[in-house]
Amino acid sequence: MSTHGVAGRSIDINVDAGESFGRWRVADEAGVFPYVSSVNLACGFHAGDPANLLRSIAMALEHGLSLGAHPGYPDKVGFGRRDMQLADHELLADTVYQLGALDGLVRAATRGSVRDPAGDGQARAAHAAQLGHVKAHGALYQRTMSDRAAAAAFARAVSLYDAGLAVLVLAGPGGAIMRETAADAGLRTVDEAFPDRAYLRSGSLAPRAMNGAVLTDPELIAERAVAMAIGRPFKALDGGEAVVTAETLCLHGDGASAPEAARAVHRALTSAGVAVRSFRGHVGT
Amino acid sequence: MSTHGVAGRSIDINVDAGESFGRWRVADEAGVFPYVSSVNLACGFHAGDPANLLRSIAMALEHGLSLGAHPGYPDKVGFGRRDMQLADHELLADTVYQLGALDGLVRAATRGSVRDPAGDGQARAAHAAQLGHVKAHGALYQRTMSDRAAAAAFARAVSLYDAGLAVLVLAGPGGAIMRETAADAGLRTVDEAFPDRAYLRSGSLAPRAMNGAVLTDPELIAERAVAMAIGRPFKALDGGEAVVTAETLCLHGDGASAPEAARAVHRALTSAGVAVRSFRGHVGT
Amino acid sequence: MSTHGVAGRSIDINVDAGESFGRWRVADEAGVFPYVSSVNLACGFHAGDPANLLRSIAMALEHGLSLGAHPGYPDKVGFGRRDMQLADHELLADTVYQLGALDGLVRAATRGSVRDPAGDGQARAAHAAQLGHVKAHGALYQRTMSDRAAAAAFARAVSLYDAGLAVLVLAGPGGAIMRETAADAGLRTVDEAFPDRAYLRSGSLAPRAMNGAVLTDPELIAERAVAMAIGRPFKALDGGEAVVTAETLCLHGDGASAPEAARAVHRALTSAGVAVRSFRGHVGT
Amino acid sequence: MSTHGVAGRSIDINVDAGESFGRWRVADEAGVFPYVSSVNLACGFHAGDPANLLRSIAMALEHGLSLGAHPGYPDKVGFGRRDMQLADHELLADTVYQLGALDGLVRAATRGSVRDPAGDGQARAAHAAQLGHVKAHGALYQRTMSDRAAAAAFARAVSLYDAGLAVLVLAGPGGAIMRETAADAGLRTVDEAFPDRAYLRSGSLAPRAMNGAVLTDPELIAERAVAMAIGRPFKALDGGEAVVTAETLCLHGDGASAPEAARAVHRALTSAGVAVRSFRGHVGT
Repeated sequence: MSTHGVAGRSIDINVDAGESFGRWRVADEAGVFPYVSSVNLACGFHAGDPANLLRSIAMALEHGLSLGAHPGYPDKVGFGRRDMQLADHELLADTVYQLGALDGLVRAATRGSVRDPAGDGQARAAHAAQLGHVKAHGALYQRTMSDRAAAAAFARAVSLYDAGLAVLVLAGPGGAIMRETAADAGLRTVDEAFPDRAYLRSGSLAPRAMNGAVLTDPELIAERAVAMAIGRPFKALDGGEAVVTAETLCLHGDGASAPEAARAVHRALTSAGVAVRSFRGHVGT
Repeated sequence: MSTHGVAGRSIDINVDAGESFGRWRVADEAGVFPYVSSVNLACGFHAGDPANLLRSIAMALEHGLSLGAHPGYPDKVGFGRRDMQLADHELLADTVYQLGALDGLVRAATRGSVRDPAGDGQARAAHAAQLGHVKAHGALYQRTMSDRAAAAAFARAVSLYDAGLAVLVLAGPGGAIMRETAADAGLRTVDEAFPDRAYLRSGSLAPRAMNGAVLTDPELIAERAVAMAIGRPFKALDGGEAVVTAETLCLHGDGASAPEAARAVHRALTSAGVAVRSFRGHVGT
Repeated sequence: MSTHGVAGRSIDINVDAGESFGRWRVADEAGVFPYVSSVNLACGFHAGDPANLLRSIAMALEHGLSLGAHPGYPDKVGFGRRDMQLADHELLADTVYQLGALDGLVRAATRGSVRDPAGDGQARAAHAAQLGHVKAHGALYQRTMSDRAAAAAFARAVSLYDAGLAVLVLAGPGGAIMRETAADAGLRTVDEAFPDRAYLRSGSLAPRAMNGAVLTDPELIAERAVAMAIGRPFKALDGGEAVVTAETLCLHGDGASAPEAARAVHRALTSAGVAVRSFRGHVGT
Repeated sequence: MSTHGVAGRSIDINVDAGESFGRWRVADEAGVFPYVSSVNLACGFHAGDPANLLRSIAMALEHGLSLGAHPGYPDKVGFGRRDMQLADHELLADTVYQLGALDGLVRAATRGSVRDPAGDGQARAAHAAQLGHVKAHGALYQRTMSDRAAAAAFARAVSLYDAGLAVLVLAGPGGAIMRETAADAGLRTVDEAFPDRAYLRSGSLAPRAMNGAVLTDPELIAERAVAMAIGRPFKALDGGEAVVTAETLCLHGDGASAPEAARAVHRALTSAGVAVRSFRGHVGT
């Protein structure tokens, strides 16, 4: 059960961001950011370009969100969702490159605010901005959760770049490989669960091919989020109950109903006495 | 006249590096690195990919070279040599992104060496590795030297990322715009001259279209390098003499004769009592 | 005055299409295609990927639209809107490559329909599918209208690939260079006008920097389209009247109001007795 | 045993070409082309850009070579050698796009020659130029040889684009899937063997991990080529003998020794009374 933070129960909500590319814009970030506490920012390989990323970072800072990197495969047309057979040294180098690039933009965004202060939000942003976590994206996420050599290359990349970064890992048995590998590399891991995905009794994600694997009703998603935040059992897709505990809940930021679902989750958590707050304790630590 | 360093006359020699891309390899870096003191490393937009860059960085560290970033236009097929009409905010964001990405790889390369020490070279590398300068590449170099708004966006990108980075600027009147703009942004500039290019009496580079604009004889290039290092007048292409002083001399690292020319320049400078040494005083400072 | 077609007045309406890229989707093609007669299909350099292009081509065929290629600069992040200094032989080669690639997809889409006939629309498509025109995109359009060497390289590319393709050219004095150059290369040109852009008395497009240069009211755009179709004078932005005649009218397919504007234009033209019909006479000829 | 052609025994030699990218040049095409009869031209996804491809096509035409397309995965940094999980409809669309693009360049190169005739070579080229075959590249080659759905998508792409194109297939049991799938799609297949690779008794390629899997001695490669051309048994890597017959032999065009090996193979075949000639009978048919 997640009780990070000092003043009672809290949980982080993370959402992917920075996924626009050139004139192709995705996601209503302004609609979703008020209801989450951290963002996974694309790093330019599967999505994101420098100018759009600066905009997304600035908006995340205005909302006081905790910032994370979301490195992916070098495949924009496939959005990083098609597995690629990278050599381990390529995976390592690609990850370091993306971490550095995004971190550079974060640094520039913060200093830009400092020099051109424009009010409360920006001033707070100046203190907040520091990369806090890393989450592999798409097919790279799947691979690092299931392939020990890839997990090791990814963990080594993170520890070489900044051993203070936390690594988001699939809660439950599916995250075991990455969790162990990151721990071996001396990295903190943060378990994440998906309130809009069904689970099996084992605590594993239900495969997408199963009927009912994806939840779309905002109220149901919100209820599930509360269960995950307080460690309450919920209905498993293969019968019986599942218990999934996590330090962070992943919501999807794209799709027309994303803001509505995010608002519903935030409201339900707050009503249940669970604060939505970054797993970093408070932003900027 | 350039007399940086503590123990008498010295001059830096910079060379472009990290320009391989995937299986396409360019330049005999092992042949050129022994004769230079700093490298301008491609950052992945006009050339360079993460895995190849890590290799080039490691080799540069083994040779104790001072490391710089060489950001360019996002145009691999054109190798960053075709001018592109980027908006100022795009130029700024693209530059920050590339600085961060390269810096991340440098950081990982250094820490990698620390953890897997393999002898003298690597140990020295561990101390040396820190990005020290920035040089715009190709058509971006030309543009930042001639377009004040672009120069300002570039300088702002550098100062937001790391105000301690020096900016390489064309020696003589051609570098005035970038030199002033960088100074306004609080950045140190380092004048560079080209021993394999002819100059006009004015101290400007002779346009490539002029007969004799490019020098190819290694001995002539070496003689010219000495003149530039000690501030001695040399023959101008438009008659009379030119005086060009610089803190760094740019040699070309590609082409079959690059190692030979670099060796000739290094030998001539040494014979003339000019040490080849990074403009950072000594590496790693 | 445009009176192409056999049975009375008609005019073509062209719209950009195929501009999605990977999961980044743009434009409501299903909403706009019913009201236009031809499409300019992106070719993969500034926008469009093969799988999305096949979808757009299939939809265009279902609507019986005349197909054209819309080659652009190799710059996805800038959407081909940033001028690039391509050498003439690069511009030629890039254009041929894009024409061939798109034409290949068109051919496959048609044959696919023939083999898997699915009803009326598909059967008609089978007859219709043949590339009929070319229109340079974005900054390449601007350049080919204003730079004679670039216009010549573009025209030569088209004539080498398929001298039967018509080239869309800006109506009025602004299109003179491309019009002459294409004619010299033995190519047919088709004048196009922009009903959502203001014009000057000279018949030139009003620069975007001028107040009122862009029209947004669907009814005003529709009225302007009728004037252009029948050669009726309309109010010039610099005072007095302009007369702009064209064989095709360009509408913008993106933006939330695109379907509404297209419907309004189509309705106004039809009400004025002007049929909306491809400049190729009838589709597939 | 291969006896295509009218005047006695003959065999095709194919080599990859057009693999340069921007300023990154690979392969000594001028050194290899005199000794081969057909080329597999990169199509811009894993290698090749339009301007470089035009140059390679022109040179291939000057040497009277038979032209083929070499489509690959969209992965330049990995040179198409890293497997990617493309959906079948993506594989189909990507293949058609590449076939069309390359075919367009071939068409332009031929017509360019016709209009600017410059002597014997060019005139012959004008007759020769027509795409004759397709060979999947790198990891896509491996996949189409081993994954029936991918093979079907590839074959369908070829047949939709031009059912007259021959498909190169691995000789022996390893090519069975692609051979059957292409035949089902009504396509001609051409078996290819690799004289610089060892084989097993089964007629399968020896895995690269085995000692001796790759042959480097030009004379040994030449001897092996003759054996493959006339159907003579040769030493298998796992003991005993292998018999591998093929209509085309694949030589590697890159590497410093490529011209020497190609010359040795050509000489050995000719001495053995086997003409080096395209499997298309004579070029241009």
